[in-house]
Amino acid sequence: MSQIILENFHSHTLEGNPLGDPTTRRVPVYLPPGYEEGGVRYPVVFLLSGFTGRGTMMLNDALWEETIQERMDRLIQEQKVRPMILVLPDCTTRYGGSQYLNSRATGNYEDHLLELVTYIDQTYATRADRVFRGVAGKSSGGYGATMLGMRHPDVFGLVADHSGDKYFELCYKPDFPKVLSYYARVGEKGMLEMLANPARVRPKSGDFFAALNISAMASCYSPNPAAPFGFDLPFDLYTGEMRAEVWARWEAFDPVVLAEKAAPSLRSLKLFFFDCGTRDEYHLQYGARIFAQRLREHHVPFVQEEFDDGHRSINYRYDVSLTKFSEAM
Amino acid sequence: MSQIILENFHSHTLEGNPLGDPTTRRVPVYLPPGYEEGGVRYPVVFLLSGFTGRGTMMLNDALWEETIQERMDRLIQEQKVRPMILVLPDCTTRYGGSQYLNSRATGNYEDHLLELVTYIDQTYATRADRVFRGVAGKSSGGYGATMLGMRHPDVFGLVADHSGDKYFELCYKPDFPKVLSYYARVGEKGMLEMLANPARVRPKSGDFFAALNISAMASCYSPNPAAPFGFDLPFDLYTGEMRAEVWARWEAFDPVVLAEKAAPSLRSLKLFFFDCGTRDEYHLQYGARIFAQRLREHHVPFVQEEFDDGHRSINYRYDVSLTKFSEAM
Amino acid sequence: MSQIILENFHSHTLEGNPLGDPTTRRVPVYLPPGYEEGGVRYPVVFLLSGFTGRGTMMLNDALWEETIQERMDRLIQEQKVRPMILVLPDCTTRYGGSQYLNSRATGNYEDHLLELVTYIDQTYATRADRVFRGVAGKSSGGYGATMLGMRHPDVFGLVADHSGDKYFELCYKPDFPKVLSYYARVGEKGMLEMLANPARVRPKSGDFFAALNISAMASCYSPNPAAPFGFDLPFDLYTGEMRAEVWARWEAFDPVVLAEKAAPSLRSLKLFFFDCGTRDEYHLQYGARIFAQRLREHHVPFVQEEFDDGHRSINYRYDVSLTKFSEAM
Amino acid sequence: MSQIILENFHSHTLEGNPLGDPTTRRVPVYLPPGYEEGGVRYPVVFLLSGFTGRGTMMLNDALWEETIQERMDRLIQEQKVRPMILVLPDCTTRYGGSQYLNSRATGNYEDHLLELVTYIDQTYATRADRVFRGVAGKSSGGYGATMLGMRHPDVFGLVADHSGDKYFELCYKPDFPKVLSYYARVGEKGMLEMLANPARVRPKSGDFFAALNISAMASCYSPNPAAPFGFDLPFDLYTGEMRAEVWARWEAFDPVVLAEKAAPSLRSLKLFFFDCGTRDEYHLQYGARIFAQRLREHHVPFVQEEFDDGHRSINYRYDVSLTKFSEAM
Repeated sequence: MSQIILENFHSHTLEGNPLGDPTTRRVPVYLPPGYEEGGVRYPVVFLLSGFTGRGTMMLNDALWEETIQERMDRLIQEQKVRPMILVLPDCTTRYGGSQYLNSRATGNYEDHLLELVTYIDQTYATRADRVFRGVAGKSSGGYGATMLGMRHPDVFGLVADHSGDKYFELCYKPDFPKVLSYYARVGEKGMLEMLANPARVRPKSGDFFAALNISAMASCYSPNPAAPFGFDLPFDLYTGEMRAEVWARWEAFDPVVLAEKAAPSLRSLKLFFFDCGTRDEYHLQYGARIFAQRLREHHVPFVQEEFDDGHRSINYRYDVSLTKFSEAM
Repeated sequence: MSQIILENFHSHTLEGNPLGDPTTRRVPVYLPPGYEEGGVRYPVVFLLSGFTGRGTMMLNDALWEETIQERMDRLIQEQKVRPMILVLPDCTTRYGGSQYLNSRATGNYEDHLLELVTYIDQTYATRADRVFRGVAGKSSGGYGATMLGMRHPDVFGLVADHSGDKYFELCYKPDFPKVLSYYARVGEKGMLEMLANPARVRPKSGDFFAALNISAMASCYSPNPAAPFGFDLPFDLYTGEMRAEVWARWEAFDPVVLAEKAAPSLRSLKLFFFDCGTRDEYHLQYGARIFAQRLREHHVPFVQEEFDDGHRSINYRYDVSLTKFSEAM
Repeated sequence: MSQIILENFHSHTLEGNPLGDPTTRRVPVYLPPGYEEGGVRYPVVFLLSGFTGRGTMMLNDALWEETIQERMDRLIQEQKVRPMILVLPDCTTRYGGSQYLNSRATGNYEDHLLELVTYIDQTYATRADRVFRGVAGKSSGGYGATMLGMRHPDVFGLVADHSGDKYFELCYKPDFPKVLSYYARVGEKGMLEMLANPARVRPKSGDFFAALNISAMASCYSPNPAAPFGFDLPFDLYTGEMRAEVWARWEAFDPVVLAEKAAPSLRSLKLFFFDCGTRDEYHLQYGARIFAQRLREHHVPFVQEEFDDGHRSINYRYDVSLTKFSEAM
Repeated sequence: MSQIILENFHSHTLEGNPLGDPTTRRVPVYLPPGYEEGGVRYPVVFLLSGFTGRGTMMLNDALWEETIQERMDRLIQEQKVRPMILVLPDCTTRYGGSQYLNSRATGNYEDHLLELVTYIDQTYATRADRVFRGVAGKSSGGYGATMLGMRHPDVFGLVADHSGDKYFELCYKPDFPKVLSYYARVGEKGMLEMLANPARVRPKSGDFFAALNISAMASCYSPNPAAPFGFDLPFDLYTGEMRAEVWARWEAFDPVVLAEKAAPSLRSLKLFFFDCGTRDEYHLQYGARIFAQRLREHHVPFVQEEFDDGHRSINYRYDVSLTKFSEAM
């Protein structure tokens, strides 16, 4: 029988984080069948949730979805995946998510993850080596996985990115007019109320979600402790005009832009896998195609897939990435 | 500290159910702080989930939502609600939900609930009396609560119905054209595949959800073991023409239609509360208004509220119903 | 060269109409090439516009559409259609359209059309015989054509109905919730303002168009001079509850319901053609299928087509109906 | 009584235009009441239609809209506008519109307009002076008016721009993903078919209109006779990646970008008016706000209004611009 250990992990890194978000996070750890018998060390995969998600939600009950425990048990039983430890971090912020980055607006979630890696290796029977340590995720979690592969290839030797944020031009910009509409309706006061407590906004309209999502991205990509919101938006809320210098800060976090510089890191990976649905509501299939072009130009080996689906309800894609991890380890 | 006991409840009622759905169900039971000290008997509230939901999902982690345990702990601590036991049943079927009814197409979920009531009274320190036993729910769960209040007022003395299905004319019919579209696209074969395994349909389009929802309702309201699907749809899938005799079977389950006959039962309740958002995507506010008219005509006392929101993300309405339950007990 | 004569037709029938709509209507008459040479009598086709349309609009310039004059010239030149006279009536009311019916709320537009037939025969070189007189239309105009075929087969021996209103259950009911939303927003005062001057309502939202359309239909199907609006709506504006007796009045105008009684009339037609797009936004393809079933049951010969398109921008279907008219005359 | 003269204007400028579009255009000319009496010279206003529109369509019959003749007659009668001549050009191309620009992909429509000005002055009793010659338009016609004011202030002394294209970043980019979807569905072959004959594409989906609109804009802003389509798109149809050099060519036509350089021209105008609805579906209110900022920075006088409406059905705004023209002349 597999087990889930619910770690209450106290993060030194998150102490004093700017939003006052919790410093202790519940981090589920999946231990494969046989773990309790001891004597074996296991590969580890960190699974990163999408925006507004965290590891505990991968254990949520849902009518037509396996939990990650059920999925992993099945994959191991079907011998598609070898026994591995899974770690399910929580890098949410009050705004929804940290993009797994360090930010002066939200906290140092990238460092937090590395801190967690150390803790896991100290606590569990891991094979504490990059070639047995993977990171995978979906949507913002896919983005996080790719960024960690670019920045910490010494830590994570295998990366899988499902429908991750890429080519910000197409994945974020189409939401900007909705943010402008939300602001036109609620004003600066309403924006501040949303940021102070997103849960309390009711009813939650479509443009609310856009406003929050773009604000959250700004808190990750263009923090500014001196600004009223704690971050800069890449456009003017009244005129809609782009702020080129802020947008440039965003683009500096775009995998498509980073590909060249990160090519040596990515080349060092044992496996770099990414995929996207051809009906992705955030147009991420295009980002994936551009990214693939860049990687080819810089001689980075990778595995790319496209599948006939949208952005949501695609947990079944973990079957693919976990299998590939298992084969590559 | 409160506790959640996860009952693995074996249901004799569900044995041999037509869809082969599980006969053992995980039923979380919330025990309030102090319960473990003993010596006290508590009121019980059964909380019924909406379509595609079940009790365990009320414990799911979500960024901006309390779990039912957190909500209840807070309400008790704020002294808005007295300590009570909550029971979170699972009446899902392969199609999504049973409407908490007995059906030859799905199984006897109404009986199953009564079986569960008996078990809970045998197992926990309940006040086993209708005036201390409530049933509440949201959407299909609200519908279930109202139906149980109508049919088993001797069992449930308090009923709360949040945005429950009512006036089928406005809540189901607008989805019928979408079912016709889905059928036009996938044909009878596709319908049968959907019914055999809804989870596997990909991608899940908007008209898929309508097709499944209406099919599920038909499995509850117009079962027909001799029909290809195991139930009759209230319209012809090719011409769209209503089948009056099937629709009449549906209407026989509409609270608005049942109000007159059920008036004596409803009058016997200690509390009958229902509410609905004024932007309900299924137009349920209108059903609630008609229902209120009918109740007034038949001298049934009730408490009705409308609130400024849609059909989803309205768990916060449980604060209202649980408080009213507590006051009325 | 063909000509368009713009008749300013004074209608005795419309004198004193309840809405004070104009009694003189501009009615374009298409005379085919050669007409001016005299000595020949021509078949006549009355072309009925859809809701909010009138004959003059068939002459409107549009980038990708032929005017009816250009279309007819081409069809004659291609020898698909023999030279015929086309008459383009105006049966609009302040609310948008009369459905080509007599109504105490709007005026006697059915009679008005018959008056126009007489005038045309008196004024132009027509073959004044039902077997050379056709009526065709699109949407509400298709409905009008079918109704005229049912009620005046002695006048119109050929009928073509493109995407006409049929099976009110599916073509009107889905709009009722939008009317309820509009009313919830603007109240009785707003409804009266809309009815007093639909043009002046700004901005014109989606639910405005539904509210106006359904009001206009009520003015045709369920007039009531004693009611505040001059007609009865088939549902309560606050509770949404259907008013069965009003809805029954509507259904009495549904071609699907009328088919049996009108079968002898329809059997007497030289041609009864109807079609609909398989993506019709008003679900009229289903009404057409039910109608076809009824006609078969009552041994009415007809020609039915389905085509891959929606409800709008389908003037090209006149090529089909005019060709069939020409062949059948 | 006012008159409409339908000029069949042969354009030397359009001879040999790349798309083979007509060189003779029907240009309605509105002559005010009293014109026929002679002895008076009148101001002239050129009214430019939006995308897929042309002058003759301003005479189209519509249920709730005045034709431009009815509107002008009323404005003159109400003494809001002095008697003026209106000219209603046709600058459509096979793709929908020319943006009133010279282009190697479509033809020299800017020159064509100037040619028309000369012709009108030669043919009608105009006051042939820039201070009595205005240009106004809506949407693409508003864009055209602003561009003509920037480039030919010696010809047009008064400019009114209703909801004109501005700040391409927000008005065109949100449509790019729809073009990508259309291409994903129809391929290069389908794109070429669309460009060869947009009318024939059926059914005309939402992404068809985006694909055609963006293609048409590319034909105006980034023509390239050597490219397969005759123009360059500002993004790659497969990867969605922006082509910076093509986009730069587009931006060189953006009023917001041109404001600085054109400031001296715009300062020389007798009247520069522009407005936009606060619910504009193309987000043009933001462009208008940015444009206003730029004009202020460069000391260009202007009159700006915002109104509570969307992008369509706003002909009533001509009442404002024509009145302002009249006052300023």
